[in-house]
Amino acid sequence: MLCPICEEAIDVDHNSYMAEVVVVRNKQVIFKDYINGFPKTSDMEVTYDAIIRLELPKNDGGLILTKNLYLSCDPYMRSRMSRSTEGSYVDSFTPGSPIIGYGVSRVLDSSLPNFKKGDLIWGLINWEEYSLIKDTSSLIKIQHIDVPLSYYTGILGMPGVTAYVGFYEICSPKKGDTVFVSAASGAVGQLVGQFAKLYRCYVVGSAGSKEKVDLLKNKFGFDEAFNYKEEQDLNAALKRYFPNGIDIYFENVGGKMLDEVLRNMRLHGRIAACGMITQYNLDQPEGIQNLFLIVTKSIRMEGFLVFDYYHLYPKFLEMILPLIHEGKITYVEDIVEGLENAPAALIGLYSGKNVGKQVVAIAHE
Amino acid sequence: MLCPICEEAIDVDHNSYMAEVVVVRNKQVIFKDYINGFPKTSDMEVTYDAIIRLELPKNDGGLILTKNLYLSCDPYMRSRMSRSTEGSYVDSFTPGSPIIGYGVSRVLDSSLPNFKKGDLIWGLINWEEYSLIKDTSSLIKIQHIDVPLSYYTGILGMPGVTAYVGFYEICSPKKGDTVFVSAASGAVGQLVGQFAKLYRCYVVGSAGSKEKVDLLKNKFGFDEAFNYKEEQDLNAALKRYFPNGIDIYFENVGGKMLDEVLRNMRLHGRIAACGMITQYNLDQPEGIQNLFLIVTKSIRMEGFLVFDYYHLYPKFLEMILPLIHEGKITYVEDIVEGLENAPAALIGLYSGKNVGKQVVAIAHE
Repeated sequence: MLCPICEEAIDVDHNSYMAEVVVVRNKQVIFKDYINGFPKTSDMEVTYDAIIRLELPKNDGGLILTKNLYLSCDPYMRSRMSRSTEGSYVDSFTPGSPIIGYGVSRVLDSSLPNFKKGDLIWGLINWEEYSLIKDTSSLIKIQHIDVPLSYYTGILGMPGVTAYVGFYEICSPKKGDTVFVSAASGAVGQLVGQFAKLYRCYVVGSAGSKEKVDLLKNKFGFDEAFNYKEEQDLNAALKRYFPNGIDIYFENVGGKMLDEVLRNMRLHGRIAACGMITQYNLDQPEGIQNLFLIVTKSIRMEGFLVFDYYHLYPKFLEMILPLIHEGKITYVEDIVEGLENAPAALIGLYSGKNVGKQVVAIAHE
Repeated sequence: MLCPICEEAIDVDHNSYMAEVVVVRNKQVIFKDYINGFPKTSDMEVTYDAIIRLELPKNDGGLILTKNLYLSCDPYMRSRMSRSTEGSYVDSFTPGSPIIGYGVSRVLDSSLPNFKKGDLIWGLINWEEYSLIKDTSSLIKIQHIDVPLSYYTGILGMPGVTAYVGFYEICSPKKGDTVFVSAASGAVGQLVGQFAKLYRCYVVGSAGSKEKVDLLKNKFGFDEAFNYKEEQDLNAALKRYFPNGIDIYFENVGGKMLDEVLRNMRLHGRIAACGMITQYNLDQPEGIQNLFLIVTKSIRMEGFLVFDYYHLYPKFLEMILPLIHEGKITYVEDIVEGLENAPAALIGLYSGKNVGKQVVAIAHE
């Protein structure tokens, strides 16, 4: 067996070697091959073959070694499971290599000046227990630990910045605006709704179960919420909650819902196109029939990628941390334990199995 | 017969009456009834029954009397021929009453302080030879007459402001941007292309005939142009002219073209949704399949209504008049003579019969 770091032959059972450096098996979630349609757990494989030396090699050229604590399951990851095509904004995963996603990690060792042993970080990491990271460009050091660490996969991480940017920068909200959020109990939606309420907007959310609708109304303070699966006629449902129309639509789902929302938008409405989760697994996306209403109602529909806005992260933290500490904003996570359960957790996103932000806990320190 | 103004009984053949005031027959184009599908000339009727007294009645409460010179045929007028539904930004025409559209008129008489006999105006007028106008809110006095008067239906009127606002305010252009304009030889498109060239963008236009393509390349200075009717594969055509993608799409047509443009947009692209002429006459609009690319490419698609931007008209004139006088911008009109030919001129827009801005000349002074 070759050491994955120094490529010397090693024997994990060799006592004298083990006495000098700790070498452990490194559980990983491997992406098997490009897919079409709905992802399945069998598109990933949990392996126990890799080993990793828990110490950096000498002259490593600049690396950090991390113990990974939490993984984030996010809808956009589906696009990385397809072969890269025109229009994909992130590269595909590499078949045979681990899934990559946002996560929270502890630095065990570092030969880079800006990270040191003991640091906590969040950013893009491999789905594995331990990682050797060379490209640290996506990593942000965690400075505030008086909140659950898992929050850095959600409210204090990528989904949090997404909700912040999407609502404040893209939606151009005004007090009193009527706001509709789809997939409203998800990682981003629950925050958008709360931001909109704090901004004194009228806020309605849609979700896919009674439990989620209850959360929206009773935990997140949405004015109204409905279960889209129970509505025969989405247009009628939207008219019920927005008799005078919708000023702002925070779009997470696409498809039929978007079409019906367009019919209910007000003049000069704004649509923040954050995601279209209903479309990601379709070979042929659903056609949007009512798009001409963008012309007749002067609607602005704007897609955005959170990666373009990370310079706002300090400003975002300055806003959000006091709101969390004062209990003015709340966050619901759906945490599963164990890397071996990560594939099912990721897949569950696309059928709405998660209630709140889907997190995988790999290790509790 | 009752006078349409004072409602006294009059007799147009009565010599003594005629000696005092001039009463003339007022040719009109009457909107017959709400329509579905493609409009036909028979949806309108040219009538010769109305009479009008060419003098304002006493105590009229504030009116102007106009002689109408030019009428503008604009794609948006189709929406006024349908029964008003959710999402229409202008009221339907009234069955039995004249068509209403932009036009250029001479004031023959006025009891309003801000208009006087002899003034030239442009704005919304009835399709008739003479009009009595009470609501003058859409009327703008023409100050510059060293250009063809018909220009106030186009380059110096609503389409001109539309092109100006759409390009400079909505498209957020940068020098060197790649710009695609559909319906590019039309009233708005020909100006957008020229604005973009003056801004040092790379500009390609599509149109529906060889004659129009020649205009785009040889008269308006587009870098490239193509006849969409001769392209088997619009995606391939767009890739030919935009190997590195499109930064700005000025959308006039909708449907299949929009779908293929979305596939060819670059990251952070902008789409000014000015119109979707291919969709106006369909009972069921075509579905747009590739809209999710708005998310993955951070595209901003924005509809706009020129009515919201008329405050920029003086600034617009300041820019455009010198460009016209210096020959740096050109404008092609398709002028038909006579009110009786107005219905066919309007209908012709929807099959692309017009070459350049479609105008109807009612009277030459």
